[in-house]
Amino acid sequence: MQAKRMEKLESSGIRKFFELAAKMKNPINLSLGQAHFPVPKPVRDAAIAAINEGKSGYSMTAGIDALKEAALNSLKKDGLSPEAVMVTSGAEGGLMTSMLALADEDCEVLLTDPCFATYGHLVKLADSKIRRIDTYPDFRLTPEKLKNACTEKTKILLFNSPANPTGVAYTDNEIAAIAKTAKELGLQVISDEVYDKFCYDHEHVSFAKYDPSAVTIRAFSKTWGIAGWRVGYAFGPKEIIDNMIMLQQFTFICSPMPFQCAAAAAFDTDISDLIQQYRVKRDMVYDGMRHTFELNRPEGAFYAFCKPRNIDNESFIKRCIENEILVVPGSAFGEKNTHFRVSFATDDETLKRGIDLLVKLGS
Amino acid sequence: MQAKRMEKLESSGIRKFFELAAKMKNPINLSLGQAHFPVPKPVRDAAIAAINEGKSGYSMTAGIDALKEAALNSLKKDGLSPEAVMVTSGAEGGLMTSMLALADEDCEVLLTDPCFATYGHLVKLADSKIRRIDTYPDFRLTPEKLKNACTEKTKILLFNSPANPTGVAYTDNEIAAIAKTAKELGLQVISDEVYDKFCYDHEHVSFAKYDPSAVTIRAFSKTWGIAGWRVGYAFGPKEIIDNMIMLQQFTFICSPMPFQCAAAAAFDTDISDLIQQYRVKRDMVYDGMRHTFELNRPEGAFYAFCKPRNIDNESFIKRCIENEILVVPGSAFGEKNTHFRVSFATDDETLKRGIDLLVKLGS
Repeated sequence: MQAKRMEKLESSGIRKFFELAAKMKNPINLSLGQAHFPVPKPVRDAAIAAINEGKSGYSMTAGIDALKEAALNSLKKDGLSPEAVMVTSGAEGGLMTSMLALADEDCEVLLTDPCFATYGHLVKLADSKIRRIDTYPDFRLTPEKLKNACTEKTKILLFNSPANPTGVAYTDNEIAAIAKTAKELGLQVISDEVYDKFCYDHEHVSFAKYDPSAVTIRAFSKTWGIAGWRVGYAFGPKEIIDNMIMLQQFTFICSPMPFQCAAAAAFDTDISDLIQQYRVKRDMVYDGMRHTFELNRPEGAFYAFCKPRNIDNESFIKRCIENEILVVPGSAFGEKNTHFRVSFATDDETLKRGIDLLVKLGS
Repeated sequence: MQAKRMEKLESSGIRKFFELAAKMKNPINLSLGQAHFPVPKPVRDAAIAAINEGKSGYSMTAGIDALKEAALNSLKKDGLSPEAVMVTSGAEGGLMTSMLALADEDCEVLLTDPCFATYGHLVKLADSKIRRIDTYPDFRLTPEKLKNACTEKTKILLFNSPANPTGVAYTDNEIAAIAKTAKELGLQVISDEVYDKFCYDHEHVSFAKYDPSAVTIRAFSKTWGIAGWRVGYAFGPKEIIDNMIMLQQFTFICSPMPFQCAAAAAFDTDISDLIQQYRVKRDMVYDGMRHTFELNRPEGAFYAFCKPRNIDNESFIKRCIENEILVVPGSAFGEKNTHFRVSFATDDETLKRGIDLLVKLGS
């Protein structure tokens, strides 16, 4: 027996791909969506202290006050003063509750193509319809593309900067223009900013700077290498955050209590050294690969989205599997399969070996 | 802006009640749904070791192998050998994914009345329709009640033993009879066994013993006092567990990694001493309250569901609030408001003071 919604939610090809990968003995893994560095010590220590202090029960649904306050203080430094904030179970918790709070069968949700694979699933879970905005080959959403994609039923834009899988980090001017157009079109924006700390060429710009009615989703998962801790936060209009909290009440219940305490204690842990290391990795990937592959220089996140110049992508992916190097086929992120995603969230030695092998296989 | 589903999901009166409670300075709190004892040391140590060993990234969606194996081994000792098992984000993670995997707008879901408040929300989230089975005044589901409640559209029974809020723990014979009838009626059963370790008069009987096609939901939340750690497991037919895993992939992602490791290392931690303490608390509540309130002797979980003999329940609840003692009004668990729930998950001294005050207010 299964609910009808399960028919729509068929696993994509990516699952088969990962099952294949799981059989490899010692692959070069450039497919990961989480930072490779160890959890910073102050963050780890704060979690252990919380466990030892017995902070292991439920928290309030919206999260502990200390973490909400730390988030608000940090946002204030960036000139943002949202109506409401809540603690979520990672970015995904914020994405799920915001999508279910906002989208239904009567509306369409705009996603860029390519985009993070999960977005489409969440739109379907909310019984809503996906409208994809093709952003190939530069992967940048523009006011024009946004206008052209809208119908009368289009109500929501899921925006992502810095972006997975493309590495695009939108500039202040770009976001100002997109926000203006989104407002004219009457779009409610959900802004996924889970990679906010991973910006290499300019400071991160929050969509909320130009659109306080947006719901913004953030997490500590990538920032501190704690994807498995399930802590994030969301902020935006009170009406929407309240609905997200109601949904959280009988789904996630609360983000793990000891890790909320850790996040509160370590909110402003400096990771600029780590970001500098990732900037160097970004350069390694771009400089090492651009002659063999078409790719834009990643400005944020830790991905490059590449197209083989000398071979079609499907054959290239097949070669990668045969040679036990893992990258993610573009089909995981949208309707095309012309590109693949390289993650540079790994140690330099693995990354170097990986780039060399990819270049060899793509030549 | 909000999705249509939010209209159905209005917060119940209980929220207002808790808001009132939050304003009290030092209430006697007999409203809690989590065990009061400190996390057992082996469990805490295992969590800290996992954090120090850097096990902080994502796990596989279905959970780490070590925990799935520990769960299967433990089930085997109880004579159960399910087709599939998965790690969930607490019991709620198992409840949400099973409900979304099974229920849709074309079917009705049976809930006992009273039952855990969340069940109704989840049925609505799945776009399904609730059919309530009135179990007042003994709070026991029977084959007859089950048969009478079914229509052609009734496809799912959400069963709960030991039960919240009533303290009913069904016997082997009762479950055998209910399972037989459920099978005859073609019902898919979701069995919430989150209080499985809290049985005072007989061993816990899993619904799966008599119905291997049931999906069973369990957690460590109550057992080890780690409700805020968000770790549980679900088992049942492979087809259903696979669908639950697919849903987990883009909602919960995974249960918190360090706590999965802790649960795997400490799966069989003996808590029989703690259960014995709770058995004594159960007796304190029953013996202390039965002259002033109608109540059945709780057989499991850590709740008593009580009806004032000398005053109507609403007036009684009002008196409780005025006197800063917290119990949960029956309306939080179904359509009637004739009873209230007392939780005995607190220290003996608080419980004693609480019982004395309740008896005074109810006299």
